[in-house]
Amino acid sequence: MVYLTRKVEFCASHRYYIDEKSEEENLKLFGKCSYPHGHGHNYILEVTVKGDVNPQTGMVMNLTDIDKILKDVVVETMDHKFLNLDIPEFKDKIPTTENLVLYIWDSLVDAIDGCSLHRVRLHEDPFLYAEFYGE
Amino acid sequence: MVYLTRKVEFCASHRYYIDEKSEEENLKLFGKCSYPHGHGHNYILEVTVKGDVNPQTGMVMNLTDIDKILKDVVVETMDHKFLNLDIPEFKDKIPTTENLVLYIWDSLVDAIDGCSLHRVRLHEDPFLYAEFYGE
Amino acid sequence: MVYLTRKVEFCASHRYYIDEKSEEENLKLFGKCSYPHGHGHNYILEVTVKGDVNPQTGMVMNLTDIDKILKDVVVETMDHKFLNLDIPEFKDKIPTTENLVLYIWDSLVDAIDGCSLHRVRLHEDPFLYAEFYGE
Amino acid sequence: MVYLTRKVEFCASHRYYIDEKSEEENLKLFGKCSYPHGHGHNYILEVTVKGDVNPQTGMVMNLTDIDKILKDVVVETMDHKFLNLDIPEFKDKIPTTENLVLYIWDSLVDAIDGCSLHRVRLHEDPFLYAEFYGE
Amino acid sequence: MVYLTRKVEFCASHRYYIDEKSEEENLKLFGKCSYPHGHGHNYILEVTVKGDVNPQTGMVMNLTDIDKILKDVVVETMDHKFLNLDIPEFKDKIPTTENLVLYIWDSLVDAIDGCSLHRVRLHEDPFLYAEFYGE
Amino acid sequence: MVYLTRKVEFCASHRYYIDEKSEEENLKLFGKCSYPHGHGHNYILEVTVKGDVNPQTGMVMNLTDIDKILKDVVVETMDHKFLNLDIPEFKDKIPTTENLVLYIWDSLVDAIDGCSLHRVRLHEDPFLYAEFYGE
Repeated sequence: MVYLTRKVEFCASHRYYIDEKSEEENLKLFGKCSYPHGHGHNYILEVTVKGDVNPQTGMVMNLTDIDKILKDVVVETMDHKFLNLDIPEFKDKIPTTENLVLYIWDSLVDAIDGCSLHRVRLHEDPFLYAEFYGE
Repeated sequence: MVYLTRKVEFCASHRYYIDEKSEEENLKLFGKCSYPHGHGHNYILEVTVKGDVNPQTGMVMNLTDIDKILKDVVVETMDHKFLNLDIPEFKDKIPTTENLVLYIWDSLVDAIDGCSLHRVRLHEDPFLYAEFYGE
Repeated sequence: MVYLTRKVEFCASHRYYIDEKSEEENLKLFGKCSYPHGHGHNYILEVTVKGDVNPQTGMVMNLTDIDKILKDVVVETMDHKFLNLDIPEFKDKIPTTENLVLYIWDSLVDAIDGCSLHRVRLHEDPFLYAEFYGE
Repeated sequence: MVYLTRKVEFCASHRYYIDEKSEEENLKLFGKCSYPHGHGHNYILEVTVKGDVNPQTGMVMNLTDIDKILKDVVVETMDHKFLNLDIPEFKDKIPTTENLVLYIWDSLVDAIDGCSLHRVRLHEDPFLYAEFYGE
Repeated sequence: MVYLTRKVEFCASHRYYIDEKSEEENLKLFGKCSYPHGHGHNYILEVTVKGDVNPQTGMVMNLTDIDKILKDVVVETMDHKFLNLDIPEFKDKIPTTENLVLYIWDSLVDAIDGCSLHRVRLHEDPFLYAEFYGE
Repeated sequence: MVYLTRKVEFCASHRYYIDEKSEEENLKLFGKCSYPHGHGHNYILEVTVKGDVNPQTGMVMNLTDIDKILKDVVVETMDHKFLNLDIPEFKDKIPTTENLVLYIWDSLVDAIDGCSLHRVRLHEDPFLYAEFYGE
């Protein structure tokens, strides 16, 4: 069982805000992340798949296939977007790094073919990342 | 003459769009950067000052002073902001990396005291940066 | 169960030396790390907590809380310090990267509230890091 | 149980090609990696060992010993080499990142003494890495 | 005058060897770089252009144009290649980092339109880079 | 004229303190850098030489020669040292990043042979560096 991890970058903006709370409560809870017009990040996504190594190709999964899935499922959807406004999932759910890894896991898990998705790790900036292993 | 460079990070969102042009022309000119709700980055700013080394302190400029200036002038203004909407300068000017270094230079040049501002370099992401030397 | 990792930097100095051994034996055992006046590093600490995502805030643990704990418990104690001399724990124990992760785990484990500490990872430099998972 | 990870760099070239397939099939399967004269990378290897911390030295394994093993077993064999041609293992097996971690694990596992090998992680470039845990 | 720098990565292999010298002399002169089958690197190229900022677009040069030039002129030619064998320029000239920046400058200087090429910087690995400013 | 830059790392500790000032004045001037037992960093040194490219070797200066000079002149002197105590130059001068680049320039300038020293850049940590060009 070998684990293979592919990284891909996308940039997006978001805002942390709970409609039921006041401006002051949101500021207290989320700090600058609650500012009214949102802000953004260069996200770095790490997707790890695991499986046996194909004895002929020497690969767990063909990189061309992984790259196509990441482009179609993640980058096309999230790159250069305002996550709260552009992705229906985040209409009523805050696009925190934690919620983003859950969303990306769900988007990818059925698209990975011939091996299995092991982990989704997302870096919001050089000092914060979240991970999900499927349970 | 020694050059001293301090780096600071801030995250912000922006949108590239010319009102006088159509949606299609903007998309052709700016690609994904013209998407309607904007997107964002983790900016890394490098500010370089130059001057003689103070023989007693061994410093060109006290780091505490540089850090206070960068916090007051740059971070408070730009961090966690949507640059087009939150900074008056960019109401009618696109906040490209090029325009941002010009804006940051103008914001900093008179605040630097006891030595002189040499260069403002701004990284929008790991693959793009702009620089301005004051002329 | 989502894992959230926060990074924080501190700089400190230390020395590797066993009093019961001779200068030569220490040099043989620890190389340059046994030099008499010590040396230092820019440490990068990664603290990982795990837990359920709060459905309202979208967070495993509020970043403001993690940052306050890391500042109070780790940075105030270790940043800009000579670890052998400034931290009682290391009066008779060598502050290797291994011993530091054990010490940081013990300092943090009861301070983390509402979720649980999963891993402490400490980078001494770009080419060495140690990890502890609590057992 | 503490985990200690040492990183080491080496540069090498390789080619992805299956002799039984045509030039076109190889190009379709491996893309640019099948180009006739090969290409290369700056590999970064992370070797993780695990064990108890020696109460006197504060170490899981002496760094001097790890460094000697990595130099003798990995760097001398693989650095500045064309992996398909210079390493017998890869005469009939493609030196993919997956196959390389399996090869490096086998090369190292018996050389690690006094603690145990936990993981071999190899970065081919900043956007791809493979890992093997021994099973 | 604002300077704009775009980075792009490519991987390639090369060999340092002077035909007129013996194997031993080459080994003495170039060390491991003279090994018979070559080796490779993940190169990072930084291309800097300078010019006035277009008052409407806020750009020195459109990124789409820079990216197309870098793809056509640099990446298509050099990525996944063995530089000594695949590029005619290096049939009788060693593809050192120094010679590569001269070659890349010559390849790019006439392709840059509307502003001027300022600097070509090429990183062979994290610890070595060469630069050329056109004279 | 091509510029070639070599990076090398060393770790060292230092303390910022002016004997003629009180503990309080030092703390106000230097902050945590004045703590009594010192602290340390992983320094990254970039040494840039400039010259014509040798038409036979393709090099501005042989890397083996640069590496030997950097090892003998910089690393042997400064690595794993407490700069205030271990280097006579800093007995009565504070080893700030600015003073260190002046010191390293003086140590290197006569050792570089066949081309000329262009710049010494020293990173104290990922957010601060100083540079000296010889005047």
